[in-house]
Amino acid sequence: MSPTAANERPDLITVPPGLAGVAVTDTALGDVRGREGFYHYRQYSAVELAERRTVEDVWHLLFEGELPDSQQRDAFLATVAPLRHLQEDVRAVLPAIARASATPLEGLRTALSLVGSGMRPWWDLDETARRRDALLICAQVPTLLSALHRLAHGQEPVEPRDDLPFAANYLYMLSGSEPEPRHVRAVQRYLVCTIDHGFNASTFTARVIASTGADIAACVIGAIGALSGPLHGGAPSRALEALDAIGTPDRVEAWVRERLAAGDRIMGFGHAVYRTEDPRSRLLRTTAQELGGERVELAVEVERRVVELLAELKPGRELRTNVEYYAGVVMEQCGIPRPMFTPTFTSSRVIGWCAHALEQARERKIIRPAARYVGPPPPQPVPPLEETGAATDV
Amino acid sequence: MSPTAANERPDLITVPPGLAGVAVTDTALGDVRGREGFYHYRQYSAVELAERRTVEDVWHLLFEGELPDSQQRDAFLATVAPLRHLQEDVRAVLPAIARASATPLEGLRTALSLVGSGMRPWWDLDETARRRDALLICAQVPTLLSALHRLAHGQEPVEPRDDLPFAANYLYMLSGSEPEPRHVRAVQRYLVCTIDHGFNASTFTARVIASTGADIAACVIGAIGALSGPLHGGAPSRALEALDAIGTPDRVEAWVRERLAAGDRIMGFGHAVYRTEDPRSRLLRTTAQELGGERVELAVEVERRVVELLAELKPGRELRTNVEYYAGVVMEQCGIPRPMFTPTFTSSRVIGWCAHALEQARERKIIRPAARYVGPPPPQPVPPLEETGAATDV
Repeated sequence: MSPTAANERPDLITVPPGLAGVAVTDTALGDVRGREGFYHYRQYSAVELAERRTVEDVWHLLFEGELPDSQQRDAFLATVAPLRHLQEDVRAVLPAIARASATPLEGLRTALSLVGSGMRPWWDLDETARRRDALLICAQVPTLLSALHRLAHGQEPVEPRDDLPFAANYLYMLSGSEPEPRHVRAVQRYLVCTIDHGFNASTFTARVIASTGADIAACVIGAIGALSGPLHGGAPSRALEALDAIGTPDRVEAWVRERLAAGDRIMGFGHAVYRTEDPRSRLLRTTAQELGGERVELAVEVERRVVELLAELKPGRELRTNVEYYAGVVMEQCGIPRPMFTPTFTSSRVIGWCAHALEQARERKIIRPAARYVGPPPPQPVPPLEETGAATDV
Repeated sequence: MSPTAANERPDLITVPPGLAGVAVTDTALGDVRGREGFYHYRQYSAVELAERRTVEDVWHLLFEGELPDSQQRDAFLATVAPLRHLQEDVRAVLPAIARASATPLEGLRTALSLVGSGMRPWWDLDETARRRDALLICAQVPTLLSALHRLAHGQEPVEPRDDLPFAANYLYMLSGSEPEPRHVRAVQRYLVCTIDHGFNASTFTARVIASTGADIAACVIGAIGALSGPLHGGAPSRALEALDAIGTPDRVEAWVRERLAAGDRIMGFGHAVYRTEDPRSRLLRTTAQELGGERVELAVEVERRVVELLAELKPGRELRTNVEYYAGVVMEQCGIPRPMFTPTFTSSRVIGWCAHALEQARERKIIRPAARYVGPPPPQPVPPLEETGAATDV
C-alpha cells in the first residue's frame, strides 16, 4: 500500500456543478427546448397531445413507441384497468399507512414499496415482463393516492371503475361520484402535459436506480423521494395561496410590490429551463378560461399585473407564469382538494418515470460517477482511543 | 414556436457512458484508490479503522468530522441508543409488513418510509436537525431488519439494549442472546469496512435525492432501491453457495474448470474498481482465519486454487477475491443467517449514505443533468385518433 499524494486524480473528468448540461444518456422519449418554449414526447408536441389525446394514448406512446389507434387504445385500457385494483395485502394495511403518514405522497411511497415487494429486478426479466411491472405501478398510483386521501378523511376508498379512462376514473375515485365531462377534459389536459419533462432530478433518480438493474418499484419509490424535495420545484397549491392572500383584483398591485420589497419569490412565476412562457402554463390558462368563473378571472388579472410589475421592477428578466400557477387554478375548479395537487401531478409523472426506467434498462450500463476527494491527505495513523481528542483532529 | 432541427443541442456536454470518471462533486468523506488497493474514510485507512475502532467511532468520524475520544464515544452511544427503539405506529404495522415483504430489505424500505413520514425536507432544517434525522434513520435500520427477520420466522422482535454498542446489539437483536465477544469483533470489522466505498450507485442515488432538498428518509429509501439492483453488486451469500457446491478441497479444481468452461463468472472474484486485491477481502480473510474452522480452511483453499486457475486460464487479468467472498464466510461463522447477509451490509452502509446526503445538503445545488434526444424530429402533427395506425407510427 503506497497511496499517491492526496487529490491527485488526473483521471477524473471535471464538469459543471450539478451536472448541468451534461448528457448522461441518449433518449427517444422526448426533450425540452427551454429557449423555444417547446417540449415534446417522442416526435409530438406535448401540448398538442394534451389538447387532443387521453392519458392512455400518451402512456401507450411512451411505453410502446407509437400512438394507439382506437382498437389499440381499447386494448390498452382493457389491459391496465384490472391493474388498478388494490392488492389484498395492501388493502388490509392501507388504513394503518394512512394513519401513520403525514401526506398522501408519503403514504404512496410506503404503499408502493409493498406493491413492489416480490417484484424481480429487471435484469432478470424480459421486456414484456418489465413492461407488465411498470404498467402495474402506474395503474396503482391513482388508486393508492385517492384511497389514502379518503382514508385520511374518514371515508372508505372508492373502487376503480374499469369502464372509465384514467382521468375520469381518478376524479371518480377521489369524489365517489361520476365527474363532469368538462372537468375530465381539463384534468386530462393537466395530466397529459405533466407526464414527462426532460431530465429533471426525479426522472434522473429513476434512471440511476434502473441502471443498477433494480425492479421498477425501486425506481419509482426513489423518484418520489426526489420529487418531494423543495428544490425539485412544483407545489401548485402555493400559487393558490397567493390568490387567497390577494383576494380581489384591486389588491394585486399593493400585494406584489410588498412581496418584492420583502425580497420574496412570487410563487408560480419563473422556471429553471424556460426563458419564454412555459408552454404548459399557456395550455392551462386556456383550460382554466374554458372552465370559467371569478377565481379564473382573478388569476388572469393577477398574472397580467405581476408580469407587468416584474418587468418594471426586475427589467431584463423574463419572469412568466410556470406550470404551477394555472395547474392549481385548474385543479381547484375541477374539485381536486389542495393536498392532492402534488399527488395528482405524481399520478401522471409516474408514467414518465417508468418510461425512462424502461429505456434505461435497455442500456444495461450502470450509472456510477465519481467524486473528487478534497479532505486532508490519507493515510493518517488512526489514533488509539485514549489519545484521541477533538483538538487533534480536523 | 419554431423548434430547431432535431438533435441540435451544441450546449450539451458529452461524457463517458454511465458517467464513468465524471467528478459530480467534491467530498471530504473519503475515496477509493482502485489501482493501489486502498480506500479511506476521511484521512484514515478504512481497513485500519475496521481493525481498531467501533461502528460508533466511524459513524462519529463521518458525521462529526473527527474520531471521538472516549468521552465523546460514550456521549454518542448515549445519543443513538434511545433512537434504536421502534416507534409505536411502526411496531404496530411491522408484522403486516413482514408478511407482505418478500425479503427483509423490501420490508426495510417500507418500514423506513413510515419512520420517515413527517420528516421535514432538509431545506427547511438547520444542520443539527438534519443530523438528528440522519441519526434516527441509521439507528432504526438494525432494529427494523432484525425485527423483520424474526417476524418472518414466527419469532417476536427483540428489544434493542441501550448498553450494547452497534455490532453487539445487532447480533443480540438477531439471535435474542448475548453474542460471543469474538463474533462481535469479527462482525464489527465487517460493518466498519463496509460503511462507505466511494461514489457507488446507491451512494450517488442518495446524493441526487438529497440535492433536491428532500428529507433524509427519502434519500435512504432511494439508495436501498439502487442497492437492490444486481449490477450494483454484492450478494455475499452467492460466494457461500459456491463453497457449498464444491464441498471439499479436492473438488475445487474440477468445479472451477467446469464453471469457466461453461463461461460462468466465479462469484466473489473480481471487482469493478480494484486492480489489486480488494483491501476488504484481505481484512476479512484474516478475520475469518482468526475465527477458524473447517469452513474457513475450505474457503482459503478454494481461493488459492481459483486464483491460480484464473491466472492460468485467463492470463493478464488480475482476478482476486472481492469483499463478497470472505464477508459471507465471516457472517456465517458468526451465526448470521444467509438472508440477512445483504441486510447486514445495508445496516452499515446506511451510515455512509447519510453522511453523503448530509454533505450534499450543504452544497445547496440540485443535481440535474441532461439527455440527448435521438428520436424522430419533432414536431410531427398529432394524428386524429381514427387515422392512427400502427403502420404509420414509429
